[in-house]
Amino acid sequence: MKPYEHGGNVYEAGVYNPQVRDFSANINPLGLSDKIEKAITDNMKNLVHYPDPSGLQLKQVISVNYGIKTENVILGNGAVELMYIYFHSTMPRRVLIPIPSFSEYERAARAAKCQVEYMYLNKDCGFAVDVEKLTELLPDVDVVILGNPNNPTGNLLNIERVIQLLKAAARNNTTIIMDESFMDFRSDAQLYSVMDMVNEYDNLFVISSMTKFYAIPGLRLGFGVANRELIHLLELGKDPWNVNLLAQVAGVAALQDEGYRIKTRQQVRECINKMYESLMQLSDLIVYEPSVNFILVSVEKTGLTSTTFVAKMKDKGFGVRDCSNYPGMDEFHVRFAVRLEGENSALLQAVRAVLQENRG
Amino acid sequence: MKPYEHGGNVYEAGVYNPQVRDFSANINPLGLSDKIEKAITDNMKNLVHYPDPSGLQLKQVISVNYGIKTENVILGNGAVELMYIYFHSTMPRRVLIPIPSFSEYERAARAAKCQVEYMYLNKDCGFAVDVEKLTELLPDVDVVILGNPNNPTGNLLNIERVIQLLKAAARNNTTIIMDESFMDFRSDAQLYSVMDMVNEYDNLFVISSMTKFYAIPGLRLGFGVANRELIHLLELGKDPWNVNLLAQVAGVAALQDEGYRIKTRQQVRECINKMYESLMQLSDLIVYEPSVNFILVSVEKTGLTSTTFVAKMKDKGFGVRDCSNYPGMDEFHVRFAVRLEGENSALLQAVRAVLQENRG
Repeated sequence: MKPYEHGGNVYEAGVYNPQVRDFSANINPLGLSDKIEKAITDNMKNLVHYPDPSGLQLKQVISVNYGIKTENVILGNGAVELMYIYFHSTMPRRVLIPIPSFSEYERAARAAKCQVEYMYLNKDCGFAVDVEKLTELLPDVDVVILGNPNNPTGNLLNIERVIQLLKAAARNNTTIIMDESFMDFRSDAQLYSVMDMVNEYDNLFVISSMTKFYAIPGLRLGFGVANRELIHLLELGKDPWNVNLLAQVAGVAALQDEGYRIKTRQQVRECINKMYESLMQLSDLIVYEPSVNFILVSVEKTGLTSTTFVAKMKDKGFGVRDCSNYPGMDEFHVRFAVRLEGENSALLQAVRAVLQENRG
Repeated sequence: MKPYEHGGNVYEAGVYNPQVRDFSANINPLGLSDKIEKAITDNMKNLVHYPDPSGLQLKQVISVNYGIKTENVILGNGAVELMYIYFHSTMPRRVLIPIPSFSEYERAARAAKCQVEYMYLNKDCGFAVDVEKLTELLPDVDVVILGNPNNPTGNLLNIERVIQLLKAAARNNTTIIMDESFMDFRSDAQLYSVMDMVNEYDNLFVISSMTKFYAIPGLRLGFGVANRELIHLLELGKDPWNVNLLAQVAGVAALQDEGYRIKTRQQVRECINKMYESLMQLSDLIVYEPSVNFILVSVEKTGLTSTTFVAKMKDKGFGVRDCSNYPGMDEFHVRFAVRLEGENSALLQAVRAVLQENRG
């Protein structure tokens, strides 16, 4: 894959290819909820109106769901857009990214001509973030971007470690951008999330995607949480109608759907545990412990590269994510999203077949 | 209205108010086409996938419709987003805006910390752009932004004048951003549009909204046209999924719907001509000649301010645009969008009643 190319690109030369079962994007396998579908249908005729530039209804529902104030919330056309707005609006000079992580962090920083530096995470430690080492680097950087849970490694950072980092960063005048886009998949988010601490830490900007958990990447929706002053600055840096009307009503419907959340967390946990156990039985693979809805593996022991492995999976009708274009990743890592029970079994069967054929 | 507040905001404290007939936003009165509605319904299930980051299908249809190359096109989450991307990516120092014009031009420039200067258009000349005067100012500016047709004045600039300006700007190393968002309403666009000249003029960036003509402001869709190098730079300055999947498929359906375009142009022309004639009969109003789907009037002779006039219209159930928050506009201008025959008659009746009560 090319630099910055992503999983979930189901298009070839601009045309949607429905033949490949897509395990390459980390989308909720329960798919589009009935309530979102109804909200879109009910609001189709309203497309002749502009979206509400204040996004107030959606902000209020976010506020209730996450225990934060509406004045601390900014809505995004996806979480990724908020990074572009952040970097363009604040123009930091030096940005540190512990890698491997989501490649849009770097692309967004470079779009605003920031100087990007890497901190390499150690695969032998499961790509865990070394907070002590990171703290030592803080004096030289204006911004650090971290995913928690991190994508594609699945690594989680406890809230105590995050707070330790926030305090050290505050002493160094460094801002922490914490991407909690996968946090909704955890029923124990309170052990990890710092979303409700933005009024304690002025140097904290939390972003969250709603597209992955609510399975609406096509619709684009995310939000950012920060102190009022930063939110005000970011609002000035974006166009007033950045979040389309259907995304706003879908977001309201989604956040009011507690049943979907409960069902998702339960099913994803069961499916990911089962997939993890099954993959662990394949001695040709190195399997990283998952935390949410995807699993990272290394195919190094097979003698195949990730690119070859992914091509062989595609021949069998399965799209999985070649991670070799992630900076900080070697040429052997592959990421599987978890889907529903029958689909996961089919994926595992294909993985076993590829490994079997390779052993020959 | 507050600075940067817009027409078409049908929300009050975040809640949609369907009681007011909205003549404040310049949206195609034919409304959502069946083909767009079908495209959205047919693609609802695809919302679990990311939008195509290349936007290739839509770019190809744009290319065919406007006689330009796909490599000269960038897609936007509305035309306004493209201005933010332009200013953030190119960081010009001095931006000149002939005013009154669309207030987002200034807001986008200020978001990138540009120094914004105004050239005041003369209301006694119908707010026509004085190209000679503008040319004299070119040595001191990096970018000029013009709407053609201009909003809210309705003023049109002939292609010969635009080319004269482009040549003078090229000599001064000044870029012209030409906002042709209302051009689709003209059946004689070839007399005004410079969209197909981006390979002749490196200093030209044309933007176009698809939300006004195709009545999809809620969905957000626009595109920009420029030379390849500028398009490449702008692509780096935006997130890869800025245009949602439904907007992409709606855009393809819209551009393939020649019938909707023909019907729109014919009906809007008939309705606007009729409205213009009717308004001209009201001696209390100064009426500016319309070019597309809206009409600017001044209520100065009534002794009312535009704000009072608009409030009185709202009491009668009609939303019209108070233009007093447009820089360069006095406190007497009001803009009416044109809608369909029966609605326009009702609007005119309300206008007459307000004028009558005021005299009364």
